[in-house]
Amino acid sequence: MKYDAEVKISLKKGMLNPEAATIQRALALLKYQVENTETLQIIKFSIEGDSEDIVRQKVDEMCQKLLCNPVIHNYEIGITPED
Amino acid sequence: MKYDAEVKISLKKGMLNPEAATIQRALALLKYQVENTETLQIIKFSIEGDSEDIVRQKVDEMCQKLLCNPVIHNYEIGITPED
Repeated sequence: MKYDAEVKISLKKGMLNPEAATIQRALALLKYQVENTETLQIIKFSIEGDSEDIVRQKVDEMCQKLLCNPVIHNYEIGITPED
Repeated sequence: MKYDAEVKISLKKGMLNPEAATIQRALALLKYQVENTETLQIIKFSIEGDSEDIVRQKVDEMCQKLLCNPVIHNYEIGITPED
């Protein structure tokens, strides 16, 4: 069966995020006052697997090995069966 | 009142996404077969405003002026009142 996987990657609390800081500063220059700017990345793909649990475990392995840096990133995995 | 704004930015259909292609190739090298890999970016911030509609319009302006490139990006805006 095919599943849609979605990995949401964010920086851990306390990590500096220069991208977000730059966005916030640029918005301020355009007279938009915003606070607590954060950026996240989402990686989506479809993957074949026997069950949701097996797929989730596989995607977790991918996160540990390649997609995330566990030292600086938090990640959330979402798995939904494809129609 | 304070609102949490979330802008989800994706590439328009047909745009090449070398980042996603690289991730998919790297996963294949690790023996994970995945398909239709996509990457998206989320920008989150909190913003002061009188109503949800006014805030949404402001964030839309920000997208047009700075956050997105309307030629290549689609974007979705989510506004939720802060607790």
